[in-house]
Amino acid sequence: MSRAPDTWILTADCPSMLGTVDVVTRHLYEQRCYVTEHHSFDDRLSGRFFIRVEFRVPDGFDEDAFRAGLAERSGAFGMAFELVAPNHRPKVVIMVSKADHCLNDLLYRQRIGQLAMDVVAVVSNHPDLEPLAHWHKIPYYHFALDPNDKPAQERKVLQVIEESGAELVILARYMQVLSPELCRRLDGWAINIHHSLLPGFKGAKPYHQAYNKGVKMVGATAHYINNDLDEGPIIAQGVEVVDHAHYPEDLIAKGRDIECLTLARAVGYHIERRVFLNANRTVVL
Amino acid sequence: MSRAPDTWILTADCPSMLGTVDVVTRHLYEQRCYVTEHHSFDDRLSGRFFIRVEFRVPDGFDEDAFRAGLAERSGAFGMAFELVAPNHRPKVVIMVSKADHCLNDLLYRQRIGQLAMDVVAVVSNHPDLEPLAHWHKIPYYHFALDPNDKPAQERKVLQVIEESGAELVILARYMQVLSPELCRRLDGWAINIHHSLLPGFKGAKPYHQAYNKGVKMVGATAHYINNDLDEGPIIAQGVEVVDHAHYPEDLIAKGRDIECLTLARAVGYHIERRVFLNANRTVVL
Amino acid sequence: MSRAPDTWILTADCPSMLGTVDVVTRHLYEQRCYVTEHHSFDDRLSGRFFIRVEFRVPDGFDEDAFRAGLAERSGAFGMAFELVAPNHRPKVVIMVSKADHCLNDLLYRQRIGQLAMDVVAVVSNHPDLEPLAHWHKIPYYHFALDPNDKPAQERKVLQVIEESGAELVILARYMQVLSPELCRRLDGWAINIHHSLLPGFKGAKPYHQAYNKGVKMVGATAHYINNDLDEGPIIAQGVEVVDHAHYPEDLIAKGRDIECLTLARAVGYHIERRVFLNANRTVVL
Amino acid sequence: MSRAPDTWILTADCPSMLGTVDVVTRHLYEQRCYVTEHHSFDDRLSGRFFIRVEFRVPDGFDEDAFRAGLAERSGAFGMAFELVAPNHRPKVVIMVSKADHCLNDLLYRQRIGQLAMDVVAVVSNHPDLEPLAHWHKIPYYHFALDPNDKPAQERKVLQVIEESGAELVILARYMQVLSPELCRRLDGWAINIHHSLLPGFKGAKPYHQAYNKGVKMVGATAHYINNDLDEGPIIAQGVEVVDHAHYPEDLIAKGRDIECLTLARAVGYHIERRVFLNANRTVVL
Repeated sequence: MSRAPDTWILTADCPSMLGTVDVVTRHLYEQRCYVTEHHSFDDRLSGRFFIRVEFRVPDGFDEDAFRAGLAERSGAFGMAFELVAPNHRPKVVIMVSKADHCLNDLLYRQRIGQLAMDVVAVVSNHPDLEPLAHWHKIPYYHFALDPNDKPAQERKVLQVIEESGAELVILARYMQVLSPELCRRLDGWAINIHHSLLPGFKGAKPYHQAYNKGVKMVGATAHYINNDLDEGPIIAQGVEVVDHAHYPEDLIAKGRDIECLTLARAVGYHIERRVFLNANRTVVL
Repeated sequence: MSRAPDTWILTADCPSMLGTVDVVTRHLYEQRCYVTEHHSFDDRLSGRFFIRVEFRVPDGFDEDAFRAGLAERSGAFGMAFELVAPNHRPKVVIMVSKADHCLNDLLYRQRIGQLAMDVVAVVSNHPDLEPLAHWHKIPYYHFALDPNDKPAQERKVLQVIEESGAELVILARYMQVLSPELCRRLDGWAINIHHSLLPGFKGAKPYHQAYNKGVKMVGATAHYINNDLDEGPIIAQGVEVVDHAHYPEDLIAKGRDIECLTLARAVGYHIERRVFLNANRTVVL
Repeated sequence: MSRAPDTWILTADCPSMLGTVDVVTRHLYEQRCYVTEHHSFDDRLSGRFFIRVEFRVPDGFDEDAFRAGLAERSGAFGMAFELVAPNHRPKVVIMVSKADHCLNDLLYRQRIGQLAMDVVAVVSNHPDLEPLAHWHKIPYYHFALDPNDKPAQERKVLQVIEESGAELVILARYMQVLSPELCRRLDGWAINIHHSLLPGFKGAKPYHQAYNKGVKMVGATAHYINNDLDEGPIIAQGVEVVDHAHYPEDLIAKGRDIECLTLARAVGYHIERRVFLNANRTVVL
Repeated sequence: MSRAPDTWILTADCPSMLGTVDVVTRHLYEQRCYVTEHHSFDDRLSGRFFIRVEFRVPDGFDEDAFRAGLAERSGAFGMAFELVAPNHRPKVVIMVSKADHCLNDLLYRQRIGQLAMDVVAVVSNHPDLEPLAHWHKIPYYHFALDPNDKPAQERKVLQVIEESGAELVILARYMQVLSPELCRRLDGWAINIHHSLLPGFKGAKPYHQAYNKGVKMVGATAHYINNDLDEGPIIAQGVEVVDHAHYPEDLIAKGRDIECLTLARAVGYHIERRVFLNANRTVVL
């Protein structure tokens, strides 16, 4: 689970066919790489193969040669692969509004080293969370919404994301609906936390919806952004038991813990390269 | 939690007003009844009061006098109450189709005394589960559906229910949509198990819906029947974690356990008189 | 669950006998107090009665008269009661060492109003967590341990606690064994978080013990301090699934979340006056 | 998760060294076997490698040649492997006393095909559960304990096990302590369900121990038998929340469900060849 500090990660996926595992494992062996964890899954319904390997490299390991060799071998399989070095820490931009529980939780986990990422910017449509970001020595960008020109605000947000070199965007209770253009730009590399167990209670005020329905469980869903509101591929879900005595504000309070844990779990999976897109679903190895 | 064998149950509900608790507790005290567990809840949003008391009675307890006295006191509150004697075991009719996991589980729990009920009939639109019912010495009624006359089959079902003197009907994976008339007849005293975490995945084949959506959790919902399909007041819900490697048949297998546990829990709450209707929600004390 | 801002809490316990409920509810009624939630439990094995009531008071409510009246009525029952006003926020001292996850979580919950308490001091045997306390504007006391005179350090700790007027002490991963004297002083009003599911893995390094044992679940236990190490009455427990791939450091990471949630839950119960001591067990209403 | 009906399983383990994955995957590829799921784990603390592969075989697959080839290749690694054909159903002997919940559950899961095993005998020190076994058309052996000659009874039990050709023995709440000799004979291929979350509450009456300790969670542990009472390698654990209102009999009732689910899960893992012994721990792939 926890990688030793000298461990690389290799992930790949391609259409299902004979030899997909072997092409990866043989290359690793011939490059004298020591495999510490290997998980592959061949989806018999979608006809797609997914593999994730953690490994240590020998002295004198040549990353470029490794990549070139694997590209050559795997070409016939239509395989796309990614290789991540042990010391790689992805740059991350976090988008927030006024609620700070997820931001507080993510920054805490970065601070103690549980999430190996570098949060390079916090972006918000409100000024409220600036002190929290600054205490963690992270730049905070407040771009107020102009109701007459929402695209203007999104352009500023996108500029920060692009100039920061971010590899991951986290919507940590960002309470604005993104435009289709921004969704398209973030497709597959932005994680949103929705405060319900999707597909139940899409849209606004899910805890109030849950209260009115009288459910006995509330949950949260971390998913990738795509074009459909609250419909992107699900990465992780969390749930807690509630009862009749939970008024909407109690569901909201209970929900905060679930949202924090579920979002942190999804971000961890993403950073550890455990998540693969499989049409509108995910494979988490 | 477990009642001692000499314990009575009193439940009541009425509009919220000053004195609702006192009217019950004072009567119990004056009748020299010994309260072992008391739980009351005043819903500040719906403006309704709910109370459930377990108690032991003194020697020479006069049930009729107790009822008459409480009726007199509580009349001014518009309070409806129910009193259940220690040895009361409700008669129950179970409706099934072909899947037997919930039936097997309910009959087992009756057999070992965990559910203090008397299943007086099993009714089905298929003959398959007759041996299981008979091994438990319970009459089995097979009423095949006539596609040209569905009401005819429902009339037979209803006749069994009515002649049995049943106080509770359990739809233990009965795979037919009930007619509005039958729903109306069963409103509030029939429990259905739906194999999803409502309100997600209403209707048919919820596990296939869940697979297609790529959820990371599946669940089940036990609810009272009312006029809306899969929309009656929720009594209990259960949930389990799943992942990408769960094909629809795996979700179904996992779901069986959740359905059994959730339905048994709801039936237990109902039998122990813990469930109150509160508009389209339930209060479970 | 969440109290409206004008809600009082009354708790009481006494030996089991006829009339315990009535004495409380009748007094509330006669004082024209409006009961919003009432839960009482009569333990048939220990022969002890516990009651907790939330209520609103009428205009012109006279707290002293209420207390005096209830004391008079309840005297014959040997009943000890507590009455808590709506705006009461207990003063709390938190004790820590180097690990900051529980402290961070508790201060966050205080800050957003989820835990209605006033942390008046953080006390530690290490200087590390001072910046975290100061960011929340809370005084931090660093009392280093003198190996040759441990009692000296405890005396300083106790002095802070006493001078602060604290009603609750929280040991949020304080990694020193308390002396029997200090335990005795804190008996029943100090909550400790132990990082295992007691009674399994008492003592030091429970996650390493858990790893060596190969358990498939790890947990945490929040309990009151008493004279026995890790043996005080349990208030709350939390648990998570783990597997063979969790090395000790993974169990520790997973444990942090469980510890935070379990400790916060126990503190919430305590502040809401839900916890009663029942010999070496607790009743949580 | 669910194997397609034509899927084989290969498992192996050996000391950690370079090439362990490749030796398996290359052989599978050269034999034109199609890998559908592959999971391997290299334990960096114990220095041991574990691998489990599910695969489909080509037309004309020669099992003997496959085995011989893999044995030759893997010899240098000190690798022990097992190969399981798609239609293999292990023979199982279940040992019980008077409690029937686990037996009922296991036989049900066999009957509906969820556990792909053939229960060939039920053995007990009491006659009570014979009707349940017979309804499932399974021979029942009642061997009463002679207090003056316990070994005599164990010899009869062992004879049934051996003559049945069983590959797995399940102690489904068998309430006798096994002799060291019998433990030795069953070491690694007999699964016991203990009704607590080990290592808490070893030995007799764990639910009463749990009640006295006032725990807020109860659990069950499925583990392999070895020489130490309740100390064999843990395969699966389950847990449920309880509270002060659960008397010992309520813990027992709640425990029944946890025991059934936990035991069935462990048996399923064993049958699907997911469990590897790793000193006194297990790896579950």
